[in-house]
Amino acid sequence: MSELDRVLARIDADLDQSLARLFDYLRIKSISTDPAYQDACRSAAEHLAADLSTVGFAAEVRPTAGHPVVLAKSNGDGRRVLFYGHYDVQPVDPLDLWHTPPFEPRIATLPDGRKVIVARGAADDKGQVMTFVEACRAWKAVTGALPLPITILVEGEEECGSKNLPPFVEAAKAELAADVALVCDTGMWDPKTPAITTALRGLVYDEVKIKAADRDLHSGMFGGAAQNPIRVLTKVLGVIHDDNGKVTIPGFYDGIRELPADVMAQWAALDITPASFLGPVGLSVPAGEKDRSLIEQLSSRPTCDINGIWGGYTGEGSKTVIPSEASAKISFRLVSGQEPEKIRAAFRAFVRARLPADCKAEFISHAGAPAIALDWGMPQLAAVRRALTEEWGKDALLIGSGASIPICADFKRLLGMDTLLVGFGLDDDRIHSPNEKYDLTSFHKGTRSWARILAALAA
Amino acid sequence: MSELDRVLARIDADLDQSLARLFDYLRIKSISTDPAYQDACRSAAEHLAADLSTVGFAAEVRPTAGHPVVLAKSNGDGRRVLFYGHYDVQPVDPLDLWHTPPFEPRIATLPDGRKVIVARGAADDKGQVMTFVEACRAWKAVTGALPLPITILVEGEEECGSKNLPPFVEAAKAELAADVALVCDTGMWDPKTPAITTALRGLVYDEVKIKAADRDLHSGMFGGAAQNPIRVLTKVLGVIHDDNGKVTIPGFYDGIRELPADVMAQWAALDITPASFLGPVGLSVPAGEKDRSLIEQLSSRPTCDINGIWGGYTGEGSKTVIPSEASAKISFRLVSGQEPEKIRAAFRAFVRARLPADCKAEFISHAGAPAIALDWGMPQLAAVRRALTEEWGKDALLIGSGASIPICADFKRLLGMDTLLVGFGLDDDRIHSPNEKYDLTSFHKGTRSWARILAALAA
Repeated sequence: MSELDRVLARIDADLDQSLARLFDYLRIKSISTDPAYQDACRSAAEHLAADLSTVGFAAEVRPTAGHPVVLAKSNGDGRRVLFYGHYDVQPVDPLDLWHTPPFEPRIATLPDGRKVIVARGAADDKGQVMTFVEACRAWKAVTGALPLPITILVEGEEECGSKNLPPFVEAAKAELAADVALVCDTGMWDPKTPAITTALRGLVYDEVKIKAADRDLHSGMFGGAAQNPIRVLTKVLGVIHDDNGKVTIPGFYDGIRELPADVMAQWAALDITPASFLGPVGLSVPAGEKDRSLIEQLSSRPTCDINGIWGGYTGEGSKTVIPSEASAKISFRLVSGQEPEKIRAAFRAFVRARLPADCKAEFISHAGAPAIALDWGMPQLAAVRRALTEEWGKDALLIGSGASIPICADFKRLLGMDTLLVGFGLDDDRIHSPNEKYDLTSFHKGTRSWARILAALAA
Repeated sequence: MSELDRVLARIDADLDQSLARLFDYLRIKSISTDPAYQDACRSAAEHLAADLSTVGFAAEVRPTAGHPVVLAKSNGDGRRVLFYGHYDVQPVDPLDLWHTPPFEPRIATLPDGRKVIVARGAADDKGQVMTFVEACRAWKAVTGALPLPITILVEGEEECGSKNLPPFVEAAKAELAADVALVCDTGMWDPKTPAITTALRGLVYDEVKIKAADRDLHSGMFGGAAQNPIRVLTKVLGVIHDDNGKVTIPGFYDGIRELPADVMAQWAALDITPASFLGPVGLSVPAGEKDRSLIEQLSSRPTCDINGIWGGYTGEGSKTVIPSEASAKISFRLVSGQEPEKIRAAFRAFVRARLPADCKAEFISHAGAPAIALDWGMPQLAAVRRALTEEWGKDALLIGSGASIPICADFKRLLGMDTLLVGFGLDDDRIHSPNEKYDLTSFHKGTRSWARILAALAA
């Protein structure tokens, strides 16, 4: 029996204990975007650092201007890998749609027989991070060492823009030096087909507040003559998309290149259809640019989404108020060639150009990160691909993702390092939604996958 | 000294006690639209009924399907008047904009020296109702009787649509029979000029919810292809007004007649300007139909306002969610000639016509009431006008109001009774807003005005 086989056997035998450790971690309410959970975020960081110490890492909780970062290093020289993940999770609202409390993890069985771990963070990203940690633990237990030197960086602000991470990475440059970065925060192609994400969309997230009168007004007295900021906000946001689903902000598509013909051909061969992708969430018609295929809309084309809107009276019943202000949160998924801050500025100019007399607009910057695309010829990519194919018995696909993981651009910019994105999430994981889950198979075979990947990268 | 003079002197001497009674009433948190305040609404009704008993009324708290109604009758035959008001108040949000707690009434002095009563309900409508009650109390104290028979009807659902009042009025038809109705829920022309409101706009209030996917989605995974209900909602609401401020819903202006030339001439002579009317609330440009004067926009033309909007993530920070639904509350102020339910149906058709594939719209009906207009030749109008002119030393104006008091239409329809609207509110009362106030002069001279009006109507 090879070393690797013994490590894999250990992972199989230890699965119940691995799950127990994951459940302990999932119970911590580390919602980073809400200040009420600040202590919980710190607890999650401390919990993870303590756990990594038991695997032989020198693990520390390091301060940032926001939630702290976990930094853990194993001993050893040679080609080192830097693993990145996040311990923070999304808010849980609307809470009443959860079938069981979001921070009381449990195993459930889906109608199709799949066993899943249900909890906020089960997939995004605590469960995914623990596949890597459990792989390290198994190597250490079986061989007394890791196959190669590893640095682990786990942040607590991924779900709220990671704004304190780039300064941390810059300050810790020397400590973070490595050959390549590994990230486990993405998905498989389908439940049986592993994937490596080689392109990620960027993200610009902005918040706008339109202000009109200096107080709330009664529509009986002022209605008809007083400017209504909700009317202004809907008038502006209502024309960001034209009738063909294109974003109308001037310059929005500037700099974007068309995909190479061979990639387009590969994508055209994939079995993704509106029915297969949108059907499971109750939709049927792609809502993006009408002249683009579904997979282009999802991964190679930029988007605009209004993520939140609020203003005036939102309680039960009726109130005839003309509010003094109205707000919205808007985000743009970017592709290669688009500059985040240029898009942010273009959006703000678009809003300001449509403000009537008596209205002001105020803005708050949230996340901003460019898209990234990996060189398909890099040697580590081939090694990881081979390891995944061995574990799953099926060729690992190279795919683009519509999501944004800004740290990948930061690793490239600040550390000169490429990032391999390997994850075991599935389309129906309900991340960011009530009843988030992670397949037990994703967790178990994900752990086994990392055990193989570490061996492949060390070879 | 005439009887009336002795009554007026009594009102002056009793002012401090009148205020103390008003404050007791203002302390009751009778927010009708929020189920959490159901008991407070009942307390307000019981408090008022008990107070009216001390003035010699046979007063009862009567049940409805919602908040109860106070019905009080004095003895006596002959021409009877029916006084209407409401004991419920608007919600107090945003609470942090109140300088002092909304249900702890106090006297404050404005920079211009005016003394004001500050509390939720001070003007709308508890303070106004108490001017009438205190006038009755003074008549009773001085002469042992009221100048004419009076029925008082005070409801608890005016701020949430009065939906249970029409059935109550219909069932209590015989008990409510009277010569004319009096309502104290309107305003003066300015702090020195009394007014009788002879026309009121109607109101249709509707709520719409747009639904798309059957769950909240992550914009990284679904962004670009999944329909976003906030985008749909803003697209629909953003085109309800055209660039000239006109409402674009088909048929919206059908049936509206132009004002007679003499009324237009009288209005043209009034000293109301954008600077004088909108300036005090921080605005400067009328936002209604560009080809209409400010006073037309405010009183003789119909409007559409979005009173509330919400959807997606509205907390601190950022969340890249594509929500499953988005909602708005929309109201229309109507003028003579418009049919409320026809307008509601036209709005809903307007929304449905703009729904893309995969979206559904659900609606909730709130208030619906037609506009009303009074015959300027009615004899009671002349009497009331004379009484007001005597109290204020200035001709009482006959005006139209932009607000809606649906009960006036119900009194006409169900009881065949006209309504005289006399109130002492001022444009800067901040009704429905934080720091609502009622001028001490409005309260004091308002009470004196009613004492005179009762005498004039009895003559």
